[in-house]
Order: sequence, then C-alpha cells, then structure tokens
Amino acid sequence: MNGGRRLVVIGGDAAGMSAAAQARRVGPEDLEILAVERGSVTSYAACGLPYLVAGIVPRPEDLIVRTPETFERDFAIQVRTRTEATDIDLRAQRVHTVDAAGREREEPYDFLVIATGAVPNRPDLPGSRAEGVFGVQTLDDGVRLRGYLEEHRPSRAVVVGAGYIGLEMAEAFLIHGMAVTVLEAGPEPMGTLDEDMGALVREGMVRAGVDFRPWTRAIGFETDRGRVSAVVTEDAAHPAGVVVLGLGTRPDSALARSAGLRIGSTGGVAVDRRMRTSQENVWAAGDCVETFHRVSRAPVAIALGTHANKQGRVAGTNIGGGYASFGGVVGTAVTKICGLEVGRTGLNEAQARAAGFEFESVAVDSTTRAGYFPGALPITVKLLAERRTGRLLGGQVVGGEGAAHRVDVLATALWNGMTVEEVAGMDLSYAPPFSPTWDPVLITARRLAERAY
Amino acid sequence: MNGGRRLVVIGGDAAGMSAAAQARRVGPEDLEILAVERGSVTSYAACGLPYLVAGIVPRPEDLIVRTPETFERDFAIQVRTRTEATDIDLRAQRVHTVDAAGREREEPYDFLVIATGAVPNRPDLPGSRAEGVFGVQTLDDGVRLRGYLEEHRPSRAVVVGAGYIGLEMAEAFLIHGMAVTVLEAGPEPMGTLDEDMGALVREGMVRAGVDFRPWTRAIGFETDRGRVSAVVTEDAAHPAGVVVLGLGTRPDSALARSAGLRIGSTGGVAVDRRMRTSQENVWAAGDCVETFHRVSRAPVAIALGTHANKQGRVAGTNIGGGYASFGGVVGTAVTKICGLEVGRTGLNEAQARAAGFEFESVAVDSTTRAGYFPGALPITVKLLAERRTGRLLGGQVVGGEGAAHRVDVLATALWNGMTVEEVAGMDLSYAPPFSPTWDPVLITARRLAERAY
Repeated sequence: MNGGRRLVVIGGDAAGMSAAAQARRVGPEDLEILAVERGSVTSYAACGLPYLVAGIVPRPEDLIVRTPETFERDFAIQVRTRTEATDIDLRAQRVHTVDAAGREREEPYDFLVIATGAVPNRPDLPGSRAEGVFGVQTLDDGVRLRGYLEEHRPSRAVVVGAGYIGLEMAEAFLIHGMAVTVLEAGPEPMGTLDEDMGALVREGMVRAGVDFRPWTRAIGFETDRGRVSAVVTEDAAHPAGVVVLGLGTRPDSALARSAGLRIGSTGGVAVDRRMRTSQENVWAAGDCVETFHRVSRAPVAIALGTHANKQGRVAGTNIGGGYASFGGVVGTAVTKICGLEVGRTGLNEAQARAAGFEFESVAVDSTTRAGYFPGALPITVKLLAERRTGRLLGGQVVGGEGAAHRVDVLATALWNGMTVEEVAGMDLSYAPPFSPTWDPVLITARRLAERAY
Repeated sequence: MNGGRRLVVIGGDAAGMSAAAQARRVGPEDLEILAVERGSVTSYAACGLPYLVAGIVPRPEDLIVRTPETFERDFAIQVRTRTEATDIDLRAQRVHTVDAAGREREEPYDFLVIATGAVPNRPDLPGSRAEGVFGVQTLDDGVRLRGYLEEHRPSRAVVVGAGYIGLEMAEAFLIHGMAVTVLEAGPEPMGTLDEDMGALVREGMVRAGVDFRPWTRAIGFETDRGRVSAVVTEDAAHPAGVVVLGLGTRPDSALARSAGLRIGSTGGVAVDRRMRTSQENVWAAGDCVETFHRVSRAPVAIALGTHANKQGRVAGTNIGGGYASFGGVVGTAVTKICGLEVGRTGLNEAQARAAGFEFESVAVDSTTRAGYFPGALPITVKLLAERRTGRLLGGQVVGGEGAAHRVDVLATALWNGMTVEEVAGMDLSYAPPFSPTWDPVLITARRLAERAY
C-alpha cells in the first residue's frame, strides 16, 4: 500500500459498486479498493428479474451491468465474490470475512462502505422452505425460478403479496400461459396507492385473467414429495405448481447494528446527508440505510436501485475527498402491469395522515392523448394537497401510455414544494399525440386547487 | 340588462372562450356575455389540423371542442360567428362589429376581452396567392387543404418552413404517399432547437423519405392555369402539386393597437399578470398577447393553445371578481415527427446568449428504457446551465417513446429555478420498461453539473 489508503466495500451491488467506482474516479490514485460480495455476481439489475422470468429478457447475463472482471480491469477495484463480511471492528478498522471455502480474513480499512442491501420478508410458515416456493431478490433467485418453470412446467402459480414485485411476477406467469392467483392481505393491490387507485390496478389485472384475492393471508403451504402443491389460507387451499413470495423487504442492517453503528427508527442504518454513518470513516448506502423523505420530513427505508446508485455515488465522492450530498427522496415508484402504467410519488392518504397533515384529495379521469387522437387511453390522476397552504403532498397515476412519466412531473413538483395552484399553471408540453390541451396533471391540480384552501 | 354588467369577447377560440366560460363560472349570474368570432366555428383544436389533413383524425367536427350552440345552451354565452370586430372605442366602451352580411353594430361593454389570435407570416411573393398554396391556421384552412388533396391528388408536396407545423404537415403528406420536399431558410429543421439537436430531427425526416433543403428560401411560385406547379428558390424550381407555408405567426394585435392599448416589444398586446391590458377594464389572452418568460425574464409571444387556455381562464376569473394570475412560460413545446419525439423547453443556445447568460451545455445519448429491455430506443438529452450558479437554462430532447414527456420534468425544474446539481439528484421514477436506472435526464444533468461551475 506504500502509504496509500484503503477502502473496503461490503456488498457488490448497485450502492456498493457505485461508491467504489466513484471513489476511484474522484479519489487519489493510490487509493486501494476492495469490495466483498456474498453472492456470485456484482452490479445486476434486480428490477429486471420479473422480465427474466417472463422470458422478455433472454439471458441472466443481460441483467449484469458490470462483472467483477470489468471492475478490476477498468477501475482497479478488487472484487471478492462468494465472500461474506461477518464482523466489523470499528476501533481496529477491520472487517472479518469468510469465503465460500471457509477461509477467514481480516481486512483493514481506512474507509468503509456498508452496502448490505435488504432482506426479503419471508413468513416462517409450515412448508415455506418447500421446493417451488421462491423469493425474487437475487439474480440466483431469478435463474433458479426460471429453471424450475422450464423443468416442471407448472400450470398454476400463486403469488403471495400484491406489491410491485408480486404483480410483475404475476404478469410473468401470465406470459407463460399459466393460471395465476394473487393473495393480498389488504383490500387492493399496490398498498402504496390509495384504495381507489389500487382498484383500477385490480380491474386491469382481472381483465388480464388474474384471480385476485383481497384480505387473504397465506398461513402455510401444502407439499407433495417435497414440492409445493398449494398455498393454504384461512378458508381455502389454492393449488400451486409454483409460489412466489412478494412480501417486501427490510433493510439488512444486522452487521452495522452488531458493529455498534446507529440504526434508525425504520431499521435502516442512520446516515447524514453525505451518507456517513455514526462513525466518522464509515459510510452506508442503498437498501440498508434509511433516508430523508422530503414531504413527510421523516426517515424512510425504500429499497430501490435508483436511490442505491445515487447514494453510492454520493458516498464515493465524499470518500474520494469531494463534496456531495443526497437530497432525500419523495417516494417515487412506477411499474407496468397488465397493460397499465402505474406510478406514485409523495404521500398517499394513509401516509399523509400519519405525517400529521390535513389534506384534500381529488382523482380525475382524463385521456393520455387529445380525445380525438387515435390511441387516446384512459388515465386517472389523483393528487393530495395540504389544507390551507395548498402544498402538493402526493400524486398517483394509473392509465395508458405516458401515465408513468407524468409521475416524474409530480415528483419534480414535490421536490420543489410547489402548491397545486402553481402546478396547475405550469408550462407543460402539449401536442395531440401526447396529451389533451389541458394535461391530466394540470386538470387535476386545477380541480384540487379549487378546494384545497 | 336590468343593471347587470356586460362582457364582450373578441375572438371565439381557445383564449376567448376560456375567458367567457370562466367568467360565467365565477361571475355574477346576471353577467351578460357576448363573443364575436370572425370565422365560422368556436373552440377548435388548431394543433390537430395536421392530423386532420393526414386523415388520422377523420372529420373536421372531431376537432371542435365546443360549438356556439353548446356555449349558448350550457354557459348562456351568446356567440356571433362570421362577425368581425373592426374598432374598439375605449372611452365609450363600445366595440364596432360587422357581420358576414355587412350589418354593422355597436356593442357596449363593461368588460372587454381581446383574443384576436395570431396572423400567419405569409411572404408577399409572386404567385403566393395561387390555388394550391395553403397556410394551416384555421379549421377552414385544414378543410380546404384536405379537399384539395382529394380533388387533385397531387403527387408532390413542398413545405416552406421547417417549424412544428411545417414538419407535421410534411409527415401528413408522407402518410398520403406523396413525395415531400421541405425548404428551410436555416441550417436544420426546428429552429427552436440547437443545430446539433435539429440535425437528429433531420436524420429522422430523411430516413422517412423527406427531401430536406437547408439554407433555402422560396422566392416565388410557378403556376399552371392558376394552380401552383412549383416553388421557386434562388437556384431551382421545386415541382409541387400542393404547397404549405409554415413560416410561423405573429400576434394579431392590430385592433388593440389602433384602439390605443399598449403593445409590447414583441408586437403582442402588453398585459399584467392578471391578463389586464393598459386599460382598466380591458383584458387580453392567447396568441395576441406577449407574456413573461420565466428564464430569460423577457417578454415573449408564443402562439400555443395551452397558454391560450390558461390565460383565458385567468382573465375570466379576474373579470368574474376572483383572483388569478398567469405565472408566465418557460417555452415548452413538443411534437412527434417521423417516429421521433421532439421536445424543448427553456432557452436554446442562441436564446441564452441573447439573454446575456454565460452557460455550459452538454448533450448525452442514452436509451428510453433499460438497455436490456425490448424496445429500448435511442434518446438524446441536451441541457444548458448558467456558469457559476449551475442554474438550468433549457433542455432539448429527441428520441423514441417517452422522450416528449421528459421535457415536462425539465419544464418543471426550470419553473422552479433548479440547478443541474439538484436535478441530477431528483427522485424520478425508475422501472425497466420506462428508463435506465439513471434516467437520461439525470445522466445529462449530472454530466453538466460536473462542468457548469
């Protein structure tokens, strides 16, 4: 090392490798960088897994953004895969690692980045470890699930949990021509939408042939010679040749916690705006941290590749001696389900209530293009605004082509703390193939502005 | 009138009828409202004319938002079509009108709205009034042009001027299977884009089969038995069975000027933020006014239905006794040409220079979806930022599906005076069918943030 300093990164996916690559770009040339990764690959597009399972993305390699070899060659970053960090000694500045062969090492560091990601919520129910019950978090999960479909050609799938991943997986099974049942503990799919908007998603799913069961919890799994054959609920057994659990994730902060780093109220590693933990030379980024929500002003833990990339980059810049800060999130998310584009940003009604806001909301039906233009499809925009100030608190969009990108306009408006009156006056683009003269966002903001005060 | 007050609106299209309808909604019940309109229809979608000519929109009636009868029935607004306002007496508060039969009237008003629209620039060249030479400003223009195509079935079209309308018309002619030549006085199509971005549009047009001629001005028209047969330029005659002039428009402020109202430096009627002219009880809205550009802070005249609607609504609210203000524009525009989505907002390089800004710019090539996702198409985003402050000054986008809506994110960012560093950190939506993990807007802002200081 000859006097150079050493960065160790725990976790070789979006956040960790963004931090490593950025520290390389801006840091001193003699900075030594080591990344350890529990799995076998680095930097893969986890959000692409449903499309891999569906066969829309042909090969697992297509989802790998950069291989360990690329990092070593182009960034002089040493990557050790199948290597787990099991302990951090903050005082001695050392990470204890164990590789697949059981070999242990002590890795000294000057800077440490914790990017341990998220753990999927898996209920500990009878039969939940049977063959044919899958999570879809890692590339290995996706590859195994695809292999299982090819080998066993099941005709019925049950998805437990109607969040983003659950619904994307339901659609993947539909593409395979399978019968699909979705079990959801709440009233409607997509719990991050309000019920009225979730209902629109449900209608789209049902039109596409999904058997959607609200208020339904899995309490166990029936098996046949070790393989799953049904999902058991309180009042039925749903036959299943394959089961996917889409029950969300929580920050994987166990390693940070046991090292003595401060953990936030959400269970994520607490960091400042530069992504520094409670320890001076230790940084954290990605799904394992909690971050600042610009609307509620409360900490949140949101597992999303786009935040992981940005946060990793911020940490890497700061480690490299530059200055960067992460501005927080507004809770933007989007997906395409059964021909519908679905997006949300900011706070939904329950979240706004929990954050102590009094608010008004309105949902307006419109069209994605000028009404007279061929291909104009229904779109519903729902907005929430604070009472008296009229400040935009959140937006949800469900509809045809172009619905998703409208969420970005709302995200940008939220980012800037705009009122719905201001939003209604904005100079958004207009041409018949893209929107009515009054864009659905503007109409809805206008309607809400008339009542928010 | 029994003590009620009277609103007269001059011009029965987007701005005028928005003002009238809004004054009805918020104003006192006994407000009498009269609208006079030179043409034969009210409230039609002028932006839809190219699609009417192309046959994508089947019938002229499809473009009419509300008929005079609807206004009378639903809004108790009296509409007189084929009636021109020829003089305004500000002191006597009277408008002089002449109808198609030559009947003259004096219409007294308490409130007046001037919504006289824009005049197309038509060069006074030899042959420019020949049969077969069209502007496309009014619904009548569109109907006549479509009739001409049906009757004469010309095989070659020449479009003079490569702005939005010109290019949309060029595409309409391609759809009819015609050979199309576009003559443009400047170097590239779409002069509101920078040349490097205009070049991308040109490439798309040429791929689609358009013969594009830069640096070429029409100096006259050859005719054959009164019908146009060619467009003459300095060094050639371009055979043409039909010609469209797309040379832009200017505010039609002649009536306001002769009444003695203040006209701004752009030639548009000067108004305050409530859309009031220099005269207390006279308001103006739409293509005939000049408005405030939020980035350059200079007056601009931009003919666009979306501004007309908003401005009309603001005028109507104020006339009705409410309070509303128009926040200005950022110069957003969008179109779809030969399979490309093209959008722009804010200032381009020439405009930024003219406004006195020092700036940096960068254009970045990316994809509309995750690179591995089927249907990912090229997209180029160009951004301009002020030196030292890093403030975003403008953005241009050319690319596949989803390119246009990204302009709205930039428009919202400009509206709020964001810096490119802030833009790069924003929580925009991400899912593989809609964008790469780093959205093209974020990548470009990031790249520019690295040099703007």
